[in-house]
Amino acid sequence: MEQLILAAKQARQASRKLGVLSTKVKNEIICSIADGLVEKAEEILSANAVDIKNAEEAGLKKSFIDRLRLSEARIADIAAALREVAALPDPIGEIVGGTKRPNGLVITKKRVPLGVIGIIFEARPNVTADAIGLCLKSGNAVILRGGSDAIHSNMAIEAVANEYGKKAGMPEGSVYLVKDTSRETARFLMEMTGYIDVLIPRGGKGLIDNVVRNAKVPTIQTGAGNCHVYIDASADIDMAVDIIRNAKMSRPSVCNAAETLLVHKDIAAAFLPKAIEALRGVELRGCEACRAFGIDIPATEEDYFEEYNDLILAVKIVENTEEAIEHINKYGTMHSEAIVTKDYASAQLFKDLVDAACVYVNASTRFTDGGEFGFGAEIGISSQKLHARGPMGLTEITTVKYVIDGDGQIR
Amino acid sequence: MEQLILAAKQARQASRKLGVLSTKVKNEIICSIADGLVEKAEEILSANAVDIKNAEEAGLKKSFIDRLRLSEARIADIAAALREVAALPDPIGEIVGGTKRPNGLVITKKRVPLGVIGIIFEARPNVTADAIGLCLKSGNAVILRGGSDAIHSNMAIEAVANEYGKKAGMPEGSVYLVKDTSRETARFLMEMTGYIDVLIPRGGKGLIDNVVRNAKVPTIQTGAGNCHVYIDASADIDMAVDIIRNAKMSRPSVCNAAETLLVHKDIAAAFLPKAIEALRGVELRGCEACRAFGIDIPATEEDYFEEYNDLILAVKIVENTEEAIEHINKYGTMHSEAIVTKDYASAQLFKDLVDAACVYVNASTRFTDGGEFGFGAEIGISSQKLHARGPMGLTEITTVKYVIDGDGQIR
Repeated sequence: MEQLILAAKQARQASRKLGVLSTKVKNEIICSIADGLVEKAEEILSANAVDIKNAEEAGLKKSFIDRLRLSEARIADIAAALREVAALPDPIGEIVGGTKRPNGLVITKKRVPLGVIGIIFEARPNVTADAIGLCLKSGNAVILRGGSDAIHSNMAIEAVANEYGKKAGMPEGSVYLVKDTSRETARFLMEMTGYIDVLIPRGGKGLIDNVVRNAKVPTIQTGAGNCHVYIDASADIDMAVDIIRNAKMSRPSVCNAAETLLVHKDIAAAFLPKAIEALRGVELRGCEACRAFGIDIPATEEDYFEEYNDLILAVKIVENTEEAIEHINKYGTMHSEAIVTKDYASAQLFKDLVDAACVYVNASTRFTDGGEFGFGAEIGISSQKLHARGPMGLTEITTVKYVIDGDGQIR
Repeated sequence: MEQLILAAKQARQASRKLGVLSTKVKNEIICSIADGLVEKAEEILSANAVDIKNAEEAGLKKSFIDRLRLSEARIADIAAALREVAALPDPIGEIVGGTKRPNGLVITKKRVPLGVIGIIFEARPNVTADAIGLCLKSGNAVILRGGSDAIHSNMAIEAVANEYGKKAGMPEGSVYLVKDTSRETARFLMEMTGYIDVLIPRGGKGLIDNVVRNAKVPTIQTGAGNCHVYIDASADIDMAVDIIRNAKMSRPSVCNAAETLLVHKDIAAAFLPKAIEALRGVELRGCEACRAFGIDIPATEEDYFEEYNDLILAVKIVENTEEAIEHINKYGTMHSEAIVTKDYASAQLFKDLVDAACVYVNASTRFTDGGEFGFGAEIGISSQKLHARGPMGLTEITTVKYVIDGDGQIR
């Protein structure tokens, strides 16, 4: 833990330097790291192979191993994402607003870095590089605490970041990976008030819940996604089938995948048989009314609360849009929710009353993503209401400062 | 606690209605409450007199009783502040931004209410009315948990809010004051994840620390203010004297009052005798070098960390602006910090490197206030970096939602 405190102190020092570094130098650092990832791809893949082998031997889920696995193509994608971040406008120094008060005080609201960001995440090594790029661009130092399953991959990526970052002028201590992946280090990070300005957990419900329960440091909850697709009575059936298939099957392991399908009772007979056909390979668990369509496994209350992250889908037939909205507001995690409809009033009602970060009309929930939203990359998807909501890009990992210029004003 | 859960459920229901209430109706509700406060001033003052009497009998500090005391004039001020809130633009429904993506998706970022806001505060009954006005205007339901010392005043204000609010169309359950002021209710509120969206503590360091340590609900830290005034070598001495006198003495019990005076060594001989004269009535505690100027009480490490909220001031003579900045970043609470200087480079350095919500050049720290910033009223002054920093007005107690319109997009 002493090592963690030392790293956090160095990160604080680094953050003071990062906060006033020019955009040009920050971009050079990030591009240098991108170059490094490609140049050292072989080392990174060897390290990743160790993680994959361990995961397979431990008999971990296929969806888990999917998130863990790197390839030359994925590394190229990660490097490209870093270069996209470098190409984005620098949020730091932005004048967010301001005013001259009647007493002559000039108040300027400026965008500044948060300082030191802690990130606790699970087994997705691409998160490591993304987080480094976004934190550096926004002038923040970063302390990364990844899961033990990805430790070899993460160490390889951190080594590249430090080697290639420093070459380009990155302050010592800007990027630090916690090598001890015991529960104790995670717990300790959560209590480092004063050392860490913000803690961002990225991962499944267990991780998020643990952080929310135990963190003393301000946190942003991310990633838990129990998302719904609601097929309204007036939906275009082919569109509806495409959207639920995409939302469930295109990448079931991620947080913006759908976990429950809600179907208006008036369209169930026309829609469900086609949907069931299109969802071949997905285990369907349905409400009582679903039996008539051959969905034999019953969906329990727990199913509606569950984020499967797997080829499983709960199905419920509802009376109307209001019931769909109520179901979503009760069981959802306020992440991404979609309605498929041709009806204007239904669409408006759904957009107004569903309490979620991202509410879709006639599109797949899978678009909730920093890249898809045009942010270049993302630090996570906030499922809380405070500070940031939905995909978080550069602006979401900054804060503001009021600078007030006077000429002797007193009150 | 069952009563609290019931109140929170009603608040959730109310928040759904408040979220779609027209600006006109919200304004009518707030103005009706303002009218009510004036009409029922006598009842409120009688209730307040009970609180004052209890506080005096309990031998509480003068500064504490000052914060607790209401008068007809203060009630008129509170009502006027409510009318100012009604007159402000409605933040809800604002289109914060948006974009049309290459795939045709139209992404709109909209401002929406947080939902249910919990406020834990100490003995300042004006907070009760302010919080009600700001929460209602921003479409949020509010659960208030004030200190036991102000319970009679708070109950009187809540009664007015509910009576006069309902007359004007306020949904049932929008405003709720916790009548049981035991520690248990505060603790329970802090753990009401899912029921309360955001918890805002307003008060001294003890309260804030307690909430930060124990809350599971996302919180915004407010109010703890260990503020500094730094007199640079080049300062205008008369201006410097005016500013430190104002920052320390105009209202020592509030969070934007100065607690430590930092003085550049080269100006100490010219400035300190005049400052000491102007600060007559303030107990000065100084560093070793202050003895030469007749400041006999030594300032300890604890003094530098202390928020006195009283007529006490720590004084330290420093080598240069850098040392002043380091001192502030080490001992301060990132609230409000001021430099008095004629030197451009010192001013820039101070503005860039002091890590605080509000950084002043040649003005008193006492201006850190929603009203002074033009926000109409304030829900508190955030001393954290997440979500909101500095005085929080209407916009700071909202969140956003992404609404995405498509025509069948899949990924």
